[in-house]
Amino acid sequence: MNAIGVDVGGTKIAAGVVTPEGEILSEVRYPSAGPRERLLSSIARAIEEVRDGFEVSGVCLAVPGFVMTAENKVVFAPNLHAIEGVPLKDELGERTGLSVTVENDANAAAWGEFRFGAGSEADHLVFITLGTGVGGGVITSGVLLRGAQGAGGELGHVTIQATGPRCGCGNHGCLEALASGTAIQRRAREVASERPNSALGRLAVERKVLGEDVTELAQGGDEAAISVLEETGRWLGIGLAGFVNVFNPEVVAVGGGAAKAGELILEPARREVNLRARSPSRDLVRIQEATLGAKSGVLGAAALARNETGEYVLGS
Amino acid sequence: MNAIGVDVGGTKIAAGVVTPEGEILSEVRYPSAGPRERLLSSIARAIEEVRDGFEVSGVCLAVPGFVMTAENKVVFAPNLHAIEGVPLKDELGERTGLSVTVENDANAAAWGEFRFGAGSEADHLVFITLGTGVGGGVITSGVLLRGAQGAGGELGHVTIQATGPRCGCGNHGCLEALASGTAIQRRAREVASERPNSALGRLAVERKVLGEDVTELAQGGDEAAISVLEETGRWLGIGLAGFVNVFNPEVVAVGGGAAKAGELILEPARREVNLRARSPSRDLVRIQEATLGAKSGVLGAAALARNETGEYVLGS
Repeated sequence: MNAIGVDVGGTKIAAGVVTPEGEILSEVRYPSAGPRERLLSSIARAIEEVRDGFEVSGVCLAVPGFVMTAENKVVFAPNLHAIEGVPLKDELGERTGLSVTVENDANAAAWGEFRFGAGSEADHLVFITLGTGVGGGVITSGVLLRGAQGAGGELGHVTIQATGPRCGCGNHGCLEALASGTAIQRRAREVASERPNSALGRLAVERKVLGEDVTELAQGGDEAAISVLEETGRWLGIGLAGFVNVFNPEVVAVGGGAAKAGELILEPARREVNLRARSPSRDLVRIQEATLGAKSGVLGAAALARNETGEYVLGS
Repeated sequence: MNAIGVDVGGTKIAAGVVTPEGEILSEVRYPSAGPRERLLSSIARAIEEVRDGFEVSGVCLAVPGFVMTAENKVVFAPNLHAIEGVPLKDELGERTGLSVTVENDANAAAWGEFRFGAGSEADHLVFITLGTGVGGGVITSGVLLRGAQGAGGELGHVTIQATGPRCGCGNHGCLEALASGTAIQRRAREVASERPNSALGRLAVERKVLGEDVTELAQGGDEAAISVLEETGRWLGIGLAGFVNVFNPEVVAVGGGAAKAGELILEPARREVNLRARSPSRDLVRIQEATLGAKSGVLGAAALARNETGEYVLGS
């Protein structure tokens, strides 16, 4: 039966009615700003509006934080404090009259790519998003890796260079500190000042250089911008090599804003995986862009609402 | 019913009849030296001898190499080349008339610790062995992590310091290069030459210092030896922190020869995990010594022969 997936982000709420085959029949968006009560009302309203005229089996909310299985709530959501500690399942179940489950947003997006995107032919998938931070989710033998508390799949804070740059989390040398959009911006500033006559260098004099600027300049052939993405790709590959060794997946899908740089990042990442991961895992794995873009959260959440494996539905 | 676990090591074969509760009723040992045919005969003989008088449901062989699920054979066994490419299930099934399965030795040992040892109360366990190399195995939601080809759980070759020392695998900064028994020996040589008047320094003048020497000297209070184990523990902790973030396990069990150093290694490892792993995973996890010692392979293999979950038995 159809189900509703809700992707609750730091700035907006996207809700969709999704078929078992991954077709989005109806979709709405709301801002996610505001205090707790307004946020809950917005989510409830998005669900009510999107379900209008459809029969649905349930709802899954994908939320940007740690979802504690035992306590059935979000315990830590650095980009959306308003949902911390809220018993979302009960609150929204009452308001909508539907069966509601809750999942970490990167896990839900991973599940979306697994069911309908880059991993639709795979049984084992590593999904990683390169945005402001680095998030991830893992499916192994068809089961979403949640861990003892639902906090598993935290791929961005694996150390790949113990003496490396400081990460937002306070540590040094996390994958996030070396391969996120934030890392691209930092590296772009450094390269711009080393190569003031490059297109990157000239832009940096005019204004703050964003991640998408680097991609655009690199696609236009600017060597300085290309080197920024290449170094980012190398660090990404060092992290992915570890995941390839650990999970032996068929597919690694890379999503998020920085993945728009495509082969400019993925090709150096593959080179590093070929150097660092072991056979036969490195020979099997396909490292590619995620294919669902921003829709992976809604699609994955809807598929999780349908409780396809029965292994990972929160508090059910 | 009882089952037979066979731990096929680089120097010896240990076979045991094990009850469903993990009691070893009978045990034999043979050398594993010799060419292919002699090795197969020794394994078959060990099985025949140990089963004498017991009813058993099947056999699982734990082997030191990559076990390819699809091809049902060991494709790469750097420490026991004689078994590479041998269809062990068929060969030994015929010779013994028993149902035979094959599993990677570190995976089998992890399963032993999960069922009967450090993880017997847990649903999610990371097991790591510090020997000449670093091996590992992971159980997540009660299922042994095998990956697409049975090559998953390769924890020793995750990069934790990309610019670090060269590893036996040819890369730089693998966990194995920084936290194995081999790394302890290398570090001991360095520290011995920096501190010639320490007990460690004096021993190094007399003869080659082994890992167990370092443990013994450290337990006797030699500061130089203590510093070797402390640095090893720190690197171990950097690797474990990543696994804690990725798997959110209840227990991390550390086995192998170097684990005999106990708290001298585990305490600095825990400090690093507390620094680098994230909440709530770091607050939950218990990092401890593995409890089964050398018996984990036989116990785990026997439990796998019984096919308790049905998820990981090779070629069945």
